[in-house]
Parts: sequence; structure tokens; C-alpha cells
Amino acid sequence: MKLGVCYYPEHWPKQRWVEDAQHMQRIGIEYVRIGEFSWSTIEPKSGELHWEWLDECLDVLHAHGLKVILGTPTATPPKWLVDRHPSMLATDEQGRVRGFGSRRHYTFSSLEYREECHRIVTIMAERYGQHPAVVSWQTDNEYGCHDTILSYGETDLTAFRLWLSDKYGTVDALNKAWGNVFWSMDYRSFDEIELPNLTVTEANPSHRLDFQRCCSDQVVAFNKLQVDILRQYSAGRDLVHNYMGFFTAFDHHKVGQDLDVASWDTYPLGFLDQESIYRNEEKQTYLRVGHPDFGAFHHDLYRGCGKGRLWIMEQQPGPVNWAPHNPTPADGAVRLWTWEAFSHGAEMVSYFRWRQAPFGQEQMHAGLLRPDAKEAEAAQEAVQVAKEINMLSAAMEMDKDELMSLPSSGKVALMFDYDACWSLDIQPQSRAYRYLFWCYRIYEAMRELGLSVDIISSHASLDMYELLVLPAQAHISSDLENRLHAYKGILLAGPRTGSKTDSYQIPENLAPGPLSTLLPLKVERVDALPEHTQPAVSGRWGKGNLKHWHEQISTELPCLLKDDSGNPVLMGSERHFYLGSCLDNDLLKTSLAKLAEKAELPTYYLPDGIRVRERGDVIFVFNYGVRSISFEPEGAELVVGNKNITTAGVAIWKKLKDQRKHIKK
Amino acid sequence: MKLGVCYYPEHWPKQRWVEDAQHMQRIGIEYVRIGEFSWSTIEPKSGELHWEWLDECLDVLHAHGLKVILGTPTATPPKWLVDRHPSMLATDEQGRVRGFGSRRHYTFSSLEYREECHRIVTIMAERYGQHPAVVSWQTDNEYGCHDTILSYGETDLTAFRLWLSDKYGTVDALNKAWGNVFWSMDYRSFDEIELPNLTVTEANPSHRLDFQRCCSDQVVAFNKLQVDILRQYSAGRDLVHNYMGFFTAFDHHKVGQDLDVASWDTYPLGFLDQESIYRNEEKQTYLRVGHPDFGAFHHDLYRGCGKGRLWIMEQQPGPVNWAPHNPTPADGAVRLWTWEAFSHGAEMVSYFRWRQAPFGQEQMHAGLLRPDAKEAEAAQEAVQVAKEINMLSAAMEMDKDELMSLPSSGKVALMFDYDACWSLDIQPQSRAYRYLFWCYRIYEAMRELGLSVDIISSHASLDMYELLVLPAQAHISSDLENRLHAYKGILLAGPRTGSKTDSYQIPENLAPGPLSTLLPLKVERVDALPEHTQPAVSGRWGKGNLKHWHEQISTELPCLLKDDSGNPVLMGSERHFYLGSCLDNDLLKTSLAKLAEKAELPTYYLPDGIRVRERGDVIFVFNYGVRSISFEPEGAELVVGNKNITTAGVAIWKKLKDQRKHIKK
Amino acid sequence: MKLGVCYYPEHWPKQRWVEDAQHMQRIGIEYVRIGEFSWSTIEPKSGELHWEWLDECLDVLHAHGLKVILGTPTATPPKWLVDRHPSMLATDEQGRVRGFGSRRHYTFSSLEYREECHRIVTIMAERYGQHPAVVSWQTDNEYGCHDTILSYGETDLTAFRLWLSDKYGTVDALNKAWGNVFWSMDYRSFDEIELPNLTVTEANPSHRLDFQRCCSDQVVAFNKLQVDILRQYSAGRDLVHNYMGFFTAFDHHKVGQDLDVASWDTYPLGFLDQESIYRNEEKQTYLRVGHPDFGAFHHDLYRGCGKGRLWIMEQQPGPVNWAPHNPTPADGAVRLWTWEAFSHGAEMVSYFRWRQAPFGQEQMHAGLLRPDAKEAEAAQEAVQVAKEINMLSAAMEMDKDELMSLPSSGKVALMFDYDACWSLDIQPQSRAYRYLFWCYRIYEAMRELGLSVDIISSHASLDMYELLVLPAQAHISSDLENRLHAYKGILLAGPRTGSKTDSYQIPENLAPGPLSTLLPLKVERVDALPEHTQPAVSGRWGKGNLKHWHEQISTELPCLLKDDSGNPVLMGSERHFYLGSCLDNDLLKTSLAKLAEKAELPTYYLPDGIRVRERGDVIFVFNYGVRSISFEPEGAELVVGNKNITTAGVAIWKKLKDQRKHIKK
Ligand SMILES: [Zn+2]
Ligand SMILES: [Zn+2]
Ligand SMILES: [Zn+2]
Repeated sequence: MKLGVCYYPEHWPKQRWVEDAQHMQRIGIEYVRIGEFSWSTIEPKSGELHWEWLDECLDVLHAHGLKVILGTPTATPPKWLVDRHPSMLATDEQGRVRGFGSRRHYTFSSLEYREECHRIVTIMAERYGQHPAVVSWQTDNEYGCHDTILSYGETDLTAFRLWLSDKYGTVDALNKAWGNVFWSMDYRSFDEIELPNLTVTEANPSHRLDFQRCCSDQVVAFNKLQVDILRQYSAGRDLVHNYMGFFTAFDHHKVGQDLDVASWDTYPLGFLDQESIYRNEEKQTYLRVGHPDFGAFHHDLYRGCGKGRLWIMEQQPGPVNWAPHNPTPADGAVRLWTWEAFSHGAEMVSYFRWRQAPFGQEQMHAGLLRPDAKEAEAAQEAVQVAKEINMLSAAMEMDKDELMSLPSSGKVALMFDYDACWSLDIQPQSRAYRYLFWCYRIYEAMRELGLSVDIISSHASLDMYELLVLPAQAHISSDLENRLHAYKGILLAGPRTGSKTDSYQIPENLAPGPLSTLLPLKVERVDALPEHTQPAVSGRWGKGNLKHWHEQISTELPCLLKDDSGNPVLMGSERHFYLGSCLDNDLLKTSLAKLAEKAELPTYYLPDGIRVRERGDVIFVFNYGVRSISFEPEGAELVVGNKNITTAGVAIWKKLKDQRKHIKK
Repeated sequence: MKLGVCYYPEHWPKQRWVEDAQHMQRIGIEYVRIGEFSWSTIEPKSGELHWEWLDECLDVLHAHGLKVILGTPTATPPKWLVDRHPSMLATDEQGRVRGFGSRRHYTFSSLEYREECHRIVTIMAERYGQHPAVVSWQTDNEYGCHDTILSYGETDLTAFRLWLSDKYGTVDALNKAWGNVFWSMDYRSFDEIELPNLTVTEANPSHRLDFQRCCSDQVVAFNKLQVDILRQYSAGRDLVHNYMGFFTAFDHHKVGQDLDVASWDTYPLGFLDQESIYRNEEKQTYLRVGHPDFGAFHHDLYRGCGKGRLWIMEQQPGPVNWAPHNPTPADGAVRLWTWEAFSHGAEMVSYFRWRQAPFGQEQMHAGLLRPDAKEAEAAQEAVQVAKEINMLSAAMEMDKDELMSLPSSGKVALMFDYDACWSLDIQPQSRAYRYLFWCYRIYEAMRELGLSVDIISSHASLDMYELLVLPAQAHISSDLENRLHAYKGILLAGPRTGSKTDSYQIPENLAPGPLSTLLPLKVERVDALPEHTQPAVSGRWGKGNLKHWHEQISTELPCLLKDDSGNPVLMGSERHFYLGSCLDNDLLKTSLAKLAEKAELPTYYLPDGIRVRERGDVIFVFNYGVRSISFEPEGAELVVGNKNITTAGVAIWKKLKDQRKHIKK
Repeated sequence: MKLGVCYYPEHWPKQRWVEDAQHMQRIGIEYVRIGEFSWSTIEPKSGELHWEWLDECLDVLHAHGLKVILGTPTATPPKWLVDRHPSMLATDEQGRVRGFGSRRHYTFSSLEYREECHRIVTIMAERYGQHPAVVSWQTDNEYGCHDTILSYGETDLTAFRLWLSDKYGTVDALNKAWGNVFWSMDYRSFDEIELPNLTVTEANPSHRLDFQRCCSDQVVAFNKLQVDILRQYSAGRDLVHNYMGFFTAFDHHKVGQDLDVASWDTYPLGFLDQESIYRNEEKQTYLRVGHPDFGAFHHDLYRGCGKGRLWIMEQQPGPVNWAPHNPTPADGAVRLWTWEAFSHGAEMVSYFRWRQAPFGQEQMHAGLLRPDAKEAEAAQEAVQVAKEINMLSAAMEMDKDELMSLPSSGKVALMFDYDACWSLDIQPQSRAYRYLFWCYRIYEAMRELGLSVDIISSHASLDMYELLVLPAQAHISSDLENRLHAYKGILLAGPRTGSKTDSYQIPENLAPGPLSTLLPLKVERVDALPEHTQPAVSGRWGKGNLKHWHEQISTELPCLLKDDSGNPVLMGSERHFYLGSCLDNDLLKTSLAKLAEKAELPTYYLPDGIRVRERGDVIFVFNYGVRSISFEPEGAELVVGNKNITTAGVAIWKKLKDQRKHIKK
């Protein structure tokens, strides 16, 4: 458990660097990310390379014992480079070229731009691959930020036709897979196929899904190009990319396969304010701490993308600048977020940024230091965390590196699948339904029950889990089908599971398609509802309301919940359960508690705003609520904080030795 | 009264066709529409024509006694054809070409595309014009769907300049008619005139109106081209097109003049959810049955466009896929909608579609069969309707063809004029006011009074009506003026009537322009209100509120309703009445009841959700409400259903012989 | 105090002109504005000039003693001219050319178009510069209307690069000023710089601000070109332009420097309905009179732009056509608005328009006459005002020209700065915060206290004011800094004051930057809030809530208001005060009352909807409220109206001689 910070030496006179490095040390920072927006400083003109500043900066940081995560600068190619390769610019869905003047001004499919990236990354990796300060490389920055995955230009069209040709071999195979006969959309050759934008009405959903997959694969290839160079020149260093919150436009699991660690950029207040997933009362209640499950959800998701390894590359340290409104965090919130990350397996939490820049687009984005180089509020919260890590280290009799390696996985798995997300969002059938939101609300309910959850890909091993939830796994591959058959724990599949083939068609035997052997039922009709209509549900497992999505199902399985017409809503027996509707949050929680009980997983109903997470033998308690609450886990002793936890408060407990097997699993 | 279905044999292996035909027969289906999206199957490459499948399919259908409505495939030209004629693509208001990938990818003004249509329709009509299965042809499909009437490309500009030149002769005449002196918009030649999009602020409303008229005329010409070929090769068959709900972008009366029957595509739930005409509480109350007047309004409107002949080409049979939310219909709703159509004069009701396709854009759109070929809920409702038609046939001592010809017109006429609609929507003056919505609410009020209404064009004969309502007839042609003078019944003209000349100018004598001899009054000023301000109205005819539109009128006519300042709101005497404001629904109903009384038309206040419609000596009672209601017309005996009608229920009554003259008119 | 009207002789047969002139005289009109949209009548073809109609019209008007304000016709270049210079068209932010068909179809930066303007204005000025009827020239019409200040075409790019080159000299200076190192946005030459639209995410705010400044300067240059010609050929005539309401896209103070008088176009109902500044309950309450401070705010603002001289060029006389809803004014409202204008220093109020045109875009826009040439309601209100001017003239023993020159400035100044407006709107940080709205609400509060306010530029002299408010003066120039130090009155600076350098950077010493010597405090952090979160505020000066913007401040200054955490919200002592948050309207009013008290300015809490304004020794009382109210200033005698003032009522009082020094200042 270590602290880091994002640093832009090119923004400041080099006379400041030593002072900055000393100050970082004083705060307790050990990692520094640099370089990812510095291309115009490195190469102000084509081929005119300036490394002297970076040489010097790395030496200063190294001299102060700081470990460097060095970013490749490919998220911000300079103007001269763009002018030489105008076709590298992306094109938006309306057909407009997206120009220079901010950042991420390229399309992933541009081979010309990939060559330039190959060039600059190679030179950089040759130069610094063995530098003693460099312990890690970050590829590019926030792939997809500002809606940059889908691009609709000539370059993208060429890449798409090639991708389709590779996938289908013959255009007749494509016509059949897409069902192009439907509206005389049959193609005679791959060269007839267009991008799915600016059509008269929606393009074929199979067409749209393949385009999304193709664009996602361009990201994978773009990243892999850098990875291969870095592996060659800087073997042994951790390769990482920094993902974003609530972002699903490319397959993070695939990108993650080529890297060593997953990291993400954590902005709890910005996302609370910005995202439509949150209800207005949530936006009001959690204004200054963020939603209680925002950080946790993404920590668990990206730990899965990182094959178990997680960093926080950018941690919000104060008000940001990019949300519709940008309030200040509550006192203690930065500490709260930092510990929440550690509790979910983060090895390192890096604050963004060291010092607030007085210029440019993010001049209203806080840092650990203010523009006048004085400490902002968050600096002292970082100091406190650094001290508390030492307290925990002492109490656990582990050094910080050992703390970093504490196990963090849970016994419950939630399957999150990017391909399913795209599939269901392409045709949501009810605007009130969205894949990501539904997954998030299931996660929230499980976390309110005190469960520690792993969020896994559809390719992940299922062996270690007692309870497995497939929120809406649209397509069930035969590999997944086999693993589900072999799975020994409790399984819950949610609405829309198995409702699509790999080609975006309805399975011949209707949903749940291949899962109907495991779950003997048939989805006969779908009732896709507006927000205002929430039919009543009741049965052996409780009562409440369904919403958004409502399947009419025929089955012989025992019914645990039914709608008012007696239609099965939640059904199953023994180990396999199916839920045909989205449920209100309370009934969802009740139902998940029953399943956890079947899985012999202890649960408890936490007070409003309280969350608990275990990592190894450490129990973390967090208060996101508006009131102070006294909360004490059984069989544990206090290491950090108090039993009474104020708003934004944290308490850290150590399990008593003889209790370690009995508490909560 | 017969049933039909829309069928896509090209989507299924031909081995299924016999089974499908047999199944249709079992359900009681007699008509089958096919072909309208099949161009790429007919002609997969330029000039390479494949008729064998269609030959065989027609033979199968014919062998099973099914009558075929054959669609020309011009709504979905294949990709190779589009690539040969790129200028055939439409251009949206923002100047973007609307590409291939869905359907309706052409602009009506493209002469190149018209030639291709001429070619394919000619070959098809030559081949099948005399086929014994073919009883009817449908031209294209849903003209205008996906906002395809107005197009802003080079082709359209050329057509517009030609159209203007034909209309005005000299550009000076155009300058005068449009009032181009207003902002120095005078043109020196027709070639200077541009399309009215992408102007700095709104273009001249006369310019916009003429462009809408021109685009509408392109549709008429496009349709006429196909009609002429079909008349030549397939004389005696009914020519038909399928119109859409709440769609006013071309003049359906003009298109209808060239056809034999009008048909439309009836989706009560999709439109309820989608349209802003409906208030939120209506969307909630009628979620699963549709608004009580949605079907009826369009049946009466399109029967008028069809010169008295009406078919339903596509009847919603379950959830659809294209509305923001897509709930399942109530049990019985499909039967309800079918009978509602018959009660308004439909000869035939055809369900869309036979079998839900597992692929393509509409894969979530229900059919009579599910994707797995099992019957969906609606199939049995169709069976029930087929049986009930036989019951009615027996009770009336008429065969089904005689039932088809039962008279369906009413004694009340509502004038609906596409040109008026365009005129008033171009400058609504209050966003709360829309022509279509106002017409619909008048219709609703009349229907709640149990009146049977004809919706007529401004060219229709008025002789047969006791009561005539002009909701907002913007321009009064001299022909209409003459017919109104000759009209002997009760006349109500609504706000904005006579407020524009044919050139979109204010009449010299102000509104109601030429009608001021019939209605001696002058509209001195207009008060165009936001939704929140609804001034009080009262007078001899009741009290309530006006809304949206409020004219200040000087007149000597007796005032039946006034506003709080004593301004006349509803005025008139003897046979001629004028309403200067939109009224709240209750006061509107009261006022129309008074007028019906003057016209000696019996009315009654129906319970919430109950509707009644007569056709010949048959009385149909429908329940769209949420509660069961007992309802019994006087002097009639029950033929189908019960006196107590549940939600989505239907009861059919036969007038007793001696009552036939006395009931309800 | 005189009346005028806007007249379009080219719309009517010249046979009407004499009758119109006579009718104007009868009403009491003395000024007539003509010509500003008449280019196509003057020059129907290139070089074919038709002056005879204008000669004749000017002679008719002159013969009837009417004074003419002659408009240059450059807001509506004819089609033939646009076709010769297609590059003169503007380009919108989405990159689409904004075509011919309405008005204002040019970009200010087009040198080709400026040449055409030079030509036509020169010919016109030569011809009419010495005409006895012509007393004034209006340049163009409503600069910026329909969002025409910012344009994104090639022409604009060329102008921008030149402007930047002039400003910065070297591109390195620009890189430094903009902080382009931030995201590798450094440029190698001015020719690399693009316009700040269609970037992937927001462009650098310094880039955006300079583009806004450049576009504003194009307007200044465009106007100056005409001014120079008019000064040459028509010396001694008043040069004027007509500005608009709530429009801030160019620097009106700069344009105003080159003119003699400022005028603006006053549409109280259209703006109430259209603008998001107004809350829904305000839109409802003031539906027919407009918001009580709408006219006043702009009168005071534009009087400042006019160096003390103000005309109303277009006064709403009835319903307009361009707002979402267009209600009729209350009886008396036109008179109310006219007198409100006079009370704030207007010399002349001109109604728009003489006669409602029956054609073109504005055919639903009322005039003094209806389309049928009968008087509309407003005509008699104009007659009444003309009579009341005479009553006032008699009572004051001054002729109308003397009334015109009555002093109108107040003792309170509100600084309104276009550059600050742009700066803060480019990065509002909270969507709930907008510079213009905040200025308006401060103005409203001061006016509810009965204060007479001057709205001044940041370059204006401060000497004459007892109280000066800087609502949010983003950048403090050294000149302003010096004048503030020299200022002897009470100063209040609001949130965001001094928060930016001239280059849009955060000052090295943080906000309030250079003002920290005058106001010893530091803004340490900003809490930018959503609408729903309004923290409590209390202290010696009252209690209430803050909203939208909330600064965390360190200071030794006495705190007059604090937030719940004890943070200073309003602070200061003696003469200098700082407010770190936006306050709710009541607390804002209370606080301003305290400051006025310190400035020894008498205030009173006016009843809802009542407003008072003094000009010289005349006291004007207005009632915008929904109820009649009795209101009587002390020490004054009634000249016009009654003590009891109905809705839309006006009372005019004359100060008693011995009271003139004592009342209200
Ligand atoms: Zn290149
Ligand atoms: Zn061609
Ligand atoms: Zn030119």
C-alpha cells in the first residue's frame, strides 16, 4: 500500500523540481507518474528531440528515491505531426473531422499514426527502458476519453472492411450472420459495406455490434503495438494503462490481457454529478463524498481486468473542473477514497495532480498543491494516510510491500461483459433499461449486504466462487456454457441472459438459449416498461416491484417471486436461479441475501451509507452517510480510527487470530 | 370484414411456406401482403432477376386460397443500385447525405431513381399483373417514414426551382407572393432560389410552405408513376398504399386520389409512448391498450383519404421494438383494435407480421408467431375475431363481403387539411399550439359524445353532414368558400381559420378572411399563450378555461362564451359559429354537445374509456378504460360479447329493426 | 422626451406614404427610422441603383416635420451580392455554411463584404448626408442577432491568425500566454493555429477567449468602417446602432465609443418568455408586463455604452412573433415601458413597427397599426404618452428638448464588463452560475431598494459614485486597479473578482489577484454547486443561503456573513468589502442595503412589483405587480397618474423645490 502522484515537470521551471521532490517525500509519496502529455516538449519539431529536460527530471526524482511511471506521450501528438498526417484525425458520428486543439485527436485505426507512435515509443523506450527510476510504463492516457473509440472516417471504413473480411471470409457468410435479407441490405462484396452512421433509420444491430467490436479491437492493437516495444526495451517493468469510470466502449479485459496491472482514474464527485445512473436524491445526499459504491465497483471491475493487480493512477484530491458542477469534497473524503481503494486490492494510489496548473483546460482542477505551491487540503489527508499505512503495517506485522500483496478477492462473482453491454445497449427495448446501470445496482445491493465481490470477465475461472451472478449475459459462448455446467456454486442469471447469438440474432429456442438446459425455462415475450410503471411482485422470497424489464416466462421451475398475473419472476431450485425482471433495490437486496444464504455466505444489512470491505485479515469500515454511526465488526480489534465513524470516516480493524475463519466467510 | 397478415417468405426456407399457408388458413386469414422489402432477393445484381422464388410462393399462397397484396419493392433499393446512383440519396436538413444501411434511402425527387423504379415495377407488373393470387398492389411502403419527405440535396433544389417556375411563371410574381421585399430577399431568377435550410434565422414562411408543398408533390408524382404502370398491366386490382399514424408531411388526400383504397399501419402502444400529443397520465392509464381515440381518428382520417375505402395494412399484434418503451398489450387488446377498425369501415385488417424475425432491425417486434414458429398471444385473438365475424355475419344475415361493404360514414364532419397543418406549424406563434393536436382533441371530444365522425379533406362534398367543424382551416380557397356558403348544416370554425392567404400572407381584411361574410367578425389580435396560463372562460354555454391560443375579436354576433375581459370566445347564431380559442377538454365537449343538439344529433356522455361506433345497423362498444363497465345501447340486441365489458373488451350489438331510424341519429 | 417609429416605406405602395406621415403626426411621433433592410430595393441588380423612391419618401417625411434616422442596409445584402462573394457567408460552430434566405448572412471578418459595405454606405452618405430630414444614421441592424458574432470559416481563420500575430508578435509569446505546454498544444507558427471549434474536447480557454475577443474586434472594425464614411459625408448627425437584450457576444462599450448615442430594442415579453434567466414563477407572474427590471437593466447598461445618451430604437408595441409563446401585453404596458425608458435617460422611444406587415418572417409581429391599417391597441397608448410628455413639460416648465437632457445618472455603479462575461462563461465551473445572471440579480436587488444605478464599463470614471459593485470582475487591469485604489466610495467586489489574468491564467497570488492589497484575502478553494445545494449563511448582516458559487477564503478582515463551517462569505470594513458567494435574493438585498447605508444612500423596501426611478427632479413610479398599490413619494407632487397605481400603471411626480436635496440622495 503506497502513495503516488501525477507530475508535470514540463509545466514548471526546473528550479522547482528538487523542491517538489523533497515535498513529495515529506508527504509520503513513493510513486510519480510523468510524461504522458509531453510530446511537444520532447519533440517540438519533427525529428528535433529534446531529452535533456527529461533526463534531468528523472535523475532528480531518482535521487529522491521516487519511483517513476513513465507515460508514452501518444495521447497528445503535436500540431506539426497532425498537419503531416491529417487522415489520423477522427471523424464523429455526424461526419465532422475532430480537429487539433485539445487532446486525443487521432483515430485508433490510423496506420500512419501508429507508425509515428511506433517511432516515438521506440526512441523513448530505448532511452529510458533501463533507467533505474523507471519502474513502470503507462501506455497513452485514458483510451476513449471524450468519446474517441468510435470514429467514422475513411481510415475507419478501410479498417472495418478488412476486419469483416477477416472475420467472415465471404460476404455471403456476413449477409447470413447479419440477416441482411431483412430490408434488402445484402452486400455483394466487403467493399460495398459502409459504416453504420448517418443511415436513414437505425442500421442493422448486427452491423452496429460488429463495428463496435472492430473499434474495440483497434484499441487492443494500438495498445499492443506499444506493449511489444516496451517489453523489448524495458523488460521487467510493469506495463499499465489508466482506465476511466463508467466507460464501456472498448473491451477492457482484452486490453488488460496485454498489460501487467490495471489502473483507473477515480473521480467520485465528478461522476456523481455527471452520470444519469444516479438519482437526484443520491446526487444531493452524496454531493461531497461520492456514491458509496462508485469507487468499489470500479476497483473490483478493474482488478479483474488487471488479472488481480490494481493501481489508482489518478485519485481526485479536491474539486475538479469537468463536471456540470464541481463541489469541494467533504473533509476526510480524499482519505476515505484512498482507503477504499486499498481495501479492494489497490497496491498504489496516485493523486492527480501534484500542483494545480494555472493555465490550460484544467486550471480549475485541484491538486495536492495549489497554483501558488501551498498545500491544498488533500495534502494533509495524504500525509494522514501515509501515517496510517505505517500503523497498519505495524499492527499486521507486515511491511508495506507485504500489505501491497494482501489477497483481495471475494467469494461472490459478478460477471461483467463488454460485448453483452454493447449488445443490449444497441437495442435497449426500454429506455429505462441499461446494462451498466443494472450491473451497478446488483453490485450495490450485494455490497449493502456486506459481501466482497469480484467482478469478472466471461472468460474468467469460476472455481473459487460460492455465488455467481450473470446480470444479463446476452450471448452465452459454448466455452462459457461448459464452465457454467461445471460450476458448483449458486448461480443467478438475470433478464436478457442468453437472449442473443454471437451474430446478434434471437436463438432458435428463444432466450435463455443455450442456458435452457441448466435453466429449463423459455422467455416467451418481453414487456419493456417506462419508468412510471412498476408492477407488483410477490412470492416466497418477498414482495416489492419490478421495473424497466419484464419477461413472460414458461417454466416448471419453482417460483420464488411472481407478478400479479402469476407469471414467474424469480425461479429456480437447488443451485440454479433465473430472474426475469429488474427489481426494485430492496427486493433485489432481499433476493440476493437469500442466494447468499444458500451459498452459506454470511450477510448483514448495513446502516445507510456504511460499507465494509475485507482484504486478507483486515476489515475496513467506511461511512459515506450523512450521520455519524457506531459500527463494530465482531472478533476484531481496532487499528485505525474509531468505532464511531463520522461522515467520510474510516475505521480499520484487524481480525483476531482465532476469529479469522469465522467472520464473514 | 376479413383478416390478413404481412408475410416475408424471403426470410424463411421455402420448405416452411406450405406449413405457413396452412397455419394462416387455420387462423382464419384470407389476405397476405408480401414483397415490399425484397428487391435484393429479386435482383441481387443489376439486371440479374430471380423470380422463381416469388413464382413459387404465389403459387403456394394461391393453392391455399389466400389473396395476395403484392408490394413494389421500392422502399429498399439494394446497395449496388445506390452505388450506381449516389445522387438518389436524400440529404437531411443539416446538409448530411443519408446513406445506405437501413431503408427508405432515396429522395422522391430523384429522376434517376424514378427510372429504376419504373423499370422494376414494370417488369414485376408484367409478370404478376394477371396472376390469379394477386388481388391488390401496394406501392412502396410507408412514404415518409423516418422523416424522408423533406430532402435538401442538389436533386431537390433542381426540382424545387422547376416547381416554383411552373407555379409562378415569373420570379417577380414569386417575389410578390412571398413578400420578399421584407428583408431584401428578392430574387432575380428562379436559379437564385435556395432551399430553406441552414439559413441564419428562419426562412420566409412562404418559402418554407412552398418547399413543403413541392416535396409533397414529389411524393404524389413518385406514387403516380407506379400507379400508371400497375393500371396498365394489372387492371382491376385494388391499388393501395400504407400510411402511418400522426404523419402529416405530405398530402395524403392527393396521393389517395390516385389509389383505390387507403390503408394504414396501426400501432396503438408505440404511438402512445412516443408521441408528445399525449399527456403523461394518458401514457400511464392507456399503457397496454393505447389511447381510446388513436385508432378511430386515423381510421376516419384515412377512410376519407381512401374515398370511403379503408384497410389496415399493419396491425400491432404484440410489443413492438421502435418506441422508447415497448410494453406488452393487455389481453384482448389486439381483438379490440381489430374490431375498432372494422367499426370505422375497415374492409380488412392485416396483422404485422406473420412471424417474428430473429434478425435485423425489428427482431424485437412481435408477430402472430414467435421466432420459434409457435403461436404468440395475438394468434388466438385473431382466431377469436375470425369466429366473431362469422357470428356477426349470421346475426346480420350478410356474408363477409356484404359486411365489408356496410356503410360507415357519420353525420359529423371534421375537416383535416394538410396544407393548413403545414401553414400553422411553420409559425405556431405558441409552442403549446399544434394543428394536429388541436384536431385530435376536437375529435376526441366528439367521440366522447358518442358521435360518429367523418374526417374530410377541404375538397370533400359537405352535403351529407349535419355538423361540420373546421378546426383551423388556415386558407379558405374560393371553392371552399362557395361550398361553405351553400352548406345547410351547422358550421363551427375554430381559431386561425381564414388567417392566411394561399401565399402565406395575412388577408387584407384580417382573419377569418373570406369567411367574414359567413362569420361577421374580425380577429384583431392574437394572444399566444404558454401552457401555464389558461384564462377563465364563461357564458351561456358553460364555463372553463381557454388555452394555447386566444384571439381578440370584434363582432356583433351573439357571444356564447367570453373571457374575463368580456372578449368573445365562442360566438354565432343560427347555423354559423366561430371559436376563437382552444378550450379545455370539458368545455370543448360541452360546446360541441350544444352544436350537436342544434344539428339534432343525439349525444351522450360516455363513461371514461368507453367508446361507441356505429356502422350500418351494427353498434360496437369498446372499453379502453381500466375498469369493467356495464353498458347497453337502447333498442339493440347483443351479438358478440357481454353487457359488462372488461378492460380491452368489445361488445357488438345489432339494432332492432324498428329502432334503426331512431337510435343515435 | 420624444416618440419615434420604425417604418418600411418599401413594403407599401407610395400612395400610402402621405397618409402614414399624417397619421404619425396625429399620434405625436417625431422620429422615423427607415431603410435598414432595403438593399434589394435600392440596388436590385449589381450597380443598378434606385434612389427615386427613397428621395420621395424622405421628402414626404420631411414635409410632415418628421426627423429621419436612416439605416445603412448592410444587415440584408441581396442574393446577387452573396452569389458574387460566397466567402462572405458565415460558418457555424458545426462547420456548416449559413446561407441566404433570411438576414445577417455575412461574417464580420469578410474583407470582400466590407468592400461592398464601403461602396453602398459611401453612395448613400453622399446622397443623403446633408438631407434636411436626416438627423441620424443607424449602422446596420442588431449586430450579432441570430448568433452571428462567432463564425468558423476560412475568412475567420485568416482574420484570427492576423489578430493573434498582431497581439503576440511571436508564437512563443502566445504559447506562453495560453499555457500551451499543458497538452502539447504548442504551435510553431501562427499559421498552425486553428479555430477553437470541433476539437475533441474543449479547446484551451485562453484560445477561446482570444477568439471571442477577435470576433468582437471584427464587429468594432466593421462598424467603424461605416462610421468613418458617415462622419465624412454627414457630419453633425447622431450616429447610432441598435443593440439587443441579454446579448454579450461583442464588446458594446468598444462599439459605443465610435458612436454618438446607444440605442436598443426593447421586447419585455419576448425576453421574459425566452430567457432561462427567469424562473418559471416569474414567467407566470409577469407574463403581460415583462420582468420589472428587464427594461431598466438594459437602459442603464446601454446608457453607459452611449456615453450617457440613450434611445430606444425598437419598443415592443404588442405581441411579437419570435418567442416560444407570444402573449398580448397588459393594457397600459406599452405606456409603462415607454415611461420606464424615459425615466432612465432615454431621449427618444421609437416603436417597432409602424404597421404590421402581412408577409415575411415577422407577419405575426404587431405594430402601431394592424395589417389593415387600423390602429392597434398600442397606438392610443403612444397618444397618451405624447400627451403626458406635454403635461410633464408644463409641470416642469421645460420644453421637450430640455426634458430630453434631464440628468439620469445615479450614485450607485454596477460594473459590467464584456471581457469578464466571456471569461467566466467559458469555464463557469458550475452550470448554475452565469455572469450575466449574477449581474442582473444584483441589479434587481438594488432596484428593489429604490436605488438609481449606473451600469458602467471597467474603463469608466468612478468619481461620481458613492457605491460601486464589481459583480465578478475576472481580470483587474492595472488601470482599473489604480482607479480602485483612488476610489473614495464604498466598494463591493463579488465572487471570481480578480480570479484571472489577462491571458486567462490564475494569478500567481490566487484570486483576488491584484486586488489583494485593497482586499487582504485569498481565495483558497472554490466550491461550485448545483442548484439543489444552497448552504446556510449567517452573521452580523443577516441570514439566508448561498448558492451556485462558494469560495473558501482566508482573511483577517471582519466577517459580516459566514457559512456553517465558519468560512467568511461577506467580509470587509470601512470602505472595502468582498463577497465570496452568490446569495439568495433576500440576503443579497439586505447586504446591499447595509452597503448603501454605509454610502449614506437612502433606500426603501418597495412593495412587490413596484419600482421607482428618479431623473433630475422627476420621480417615476411603476407597477409591474399583479395588484393595485397606493404609493406616494415624500416631498413631491403628482404630475401624471394617481397615487393608486394599477397593474402596468405609471405615476409621475415632481419634487417639491425645498425637498430636492433631501429626498433619496
Ligand atoms: Zn502521412
Ligand atoms: Zn445514374
Ligand atoms: Zn468577391
